[in-house]
Amino acid sequence: MDKNTKFLIVGLGLIGGSYAKTLKKQGFKVAAITKNQEDIDYAVKHNIIDFGTTLIDEKLIKNADIIVFALYPHIFVNWIKENGHLINKNTIITDVTGVKTPIVKKIQNMLPCGVEFIAAHPMAGKETCGVKYSSSSIFKNANYIVVPTEKNTEKAINVCKDLGSVLGFKDISVLSPEAHDEMIAFLSQLTHCIAISLMCANDNPALVRYTGDSFRDLTRIANINDEMWSELFIENKTALLREMDAFKIAFDRLYSTVRDSNREEMRRLMRISTKRRKNFNVKKEC
Amino acid sequence: MDKNTKFLIVGLGLIGGSYAKTLKKQGFKVAAITKNQEDIDYAVKHNIIDFGTTLIDEKLIKNADIIVFALYPHIFVNWIKENGHLINKNTIITDVTGVKTPIVKKIQNMLPCGVEFIAAHPMAGKETCGVKYSSSSIFKNANYIVVPTEKNTEKAINVCKDLGSVLGFKDISVLSPEAHDEMIAFLSQLTHCIAISLMCANDNPALVRYTGDSFRDLTRIANINDEMWSELFIENKTALLREMDAFKIAFDRLYSTVRDSNREEMRRLMRISTKRRKNFNVKKEC
Repeated sequence: MDKNTKFLIVGLGLIGGSYAKTLKKQGFKVAAITKNQEDIDYAVKHNIIDFGTTLIDEKLIKNADIIVFALYPHIFVNWIKENGHLINKNTIITDVTGVKTPIVKKIQNMLPCGVEFIAAHPMAGKETCGVKYSSSSIFKNANYIVVPTEKNTEKAINVCKDLGSVLGFKDISVLSPEAHDEMIAFLSQLTHCIAISLMCANDNPALVRYTGDSFRDLTRIANINDEMWSELFIENKTALLREMDAFKIAFDRLYSTVRDSNREEMRRLMRISTKRRKNFNVKKEC
Repeated sequence: MDKNTKFLIVGLGLIGGSYAKTLKKQGFKVAAITKNQEDIDYAVKHNIIDFGTTLIDEKLIKNADIIVFALYPHIFVNWIKENGHLINKNTIITDVTGVKTPIVKKIQNMLPCGVEFIAAHPMAGKETCGVKYSSSSIFKNANYIVVPTEKNTEKAINVCKDLGSVLGFKDISVLSPEAHDEMIAFLSQLTHCIAISLMCANDNPALVRYTGDSFRDLTRIANINDEMWSELFIENKTALLREMDAFKIAFDRLYSTVRDSNREEMRRLMRISTKRRKNFNVKKEC
């Protein structure tokens, strides 16, 4: 990857836009294909991309060295099904999709010979959507996960890692699709399920007058893109249900200690949570 | 309340220390009674208090115009039982205790004639304990709740509200002990239960390498003072169990939508959570 590397971003939303903005700032050539002309107009005007189109522009696709797909899972799969044959041999394609097992091998099997798909997941985001909220800063201090299969070459894995570095991610890791989906079910999807349920559990609008930071922090992600997340939850259903079950067991255990006024057991659980949470503190501060 | 008002803080921890520090900065006279001499030494050295003692200093108690109790609930009740008779007529006492129903009337009934207890709850804190972490800034943008009973006078209620203003709280509200405890069970105690359970649900230490901000935000309060919170949970058991039940119902409803791939219902719940959460955003920004 050098400054002549030509990027094509497919899907100019918050994440696609943030990739484009960061790459353009670093001096790369960045084009985009996305569905709304207004997003292209905005992105060109604000120097987020060099060029964009709402069409399946064959020349643009063939011209790209690296294509980044920032689409919902089923749209990504359909795009490759319909247009995958247009991608040039030696092009590397990558993605930002939040689930991997249901899509990675499917995409790899659909691609023309010589086109390599190396999956990745940037663990970054915001509670807003759209290219207008694009930002390079969301990648700082964030984790970037490369998700190869046995079909991937060392070369493509390294290009994908380099992309993570160029984008400014702090930690770059490698996980299998299965390990990724299990991890994401716990760290990301379960936390969103909890935040949604917490907001749905009480409809008293007066609460807002009394709330402290802990409630705000816990429910920040309850402001959720229902179209995207409902797809991610269902695509990762097996792992997510397993983590939801584990959480229910832990919550019920704490519930019993309250019901039975079992202070010793309650304190033991609190000490476990305090100890484990401290590891995450260290991580944040370093 | 004027600059000659003499405050006595009983319990120089994070909140007692932050009250002292803020009042002293505003020019009030502030003394403290607390159990550890080192906390007094620290507080005097750092200009948090004018004077402190580990003893039940009768003169200091009699000399105070306003006494703030920043103790665990049962220690507060015991303190009043043992030393309440030392408090002068016309002294107003207040507190910072996180539960109200189990203590407010009990304390009011134990006090000598002419001493008025007006309860309050500063909705502020940190995941650290002790006077060393005292800070005036934790009160900024925070809520302060005055919790009177039918025994309280308008005068004392107003003094308590004034204290909230002087401390720098953004919103000052009034709630009955019962309404306070119900609200706190949902907004504060349930959120802590969730954070604890989430940390207890998974013991994989590698997770820290992949986590994003949403998990960190959700579990910040899992770093918890087990001695204090176990007491608060048990003291407010009825209300807390009710809120835990409501959360379990909401969580199970979402669980079913995942299990049944019921995307429409899942999206409906997500839209409810998004809409409700937006009210809290507005609050935060104003």
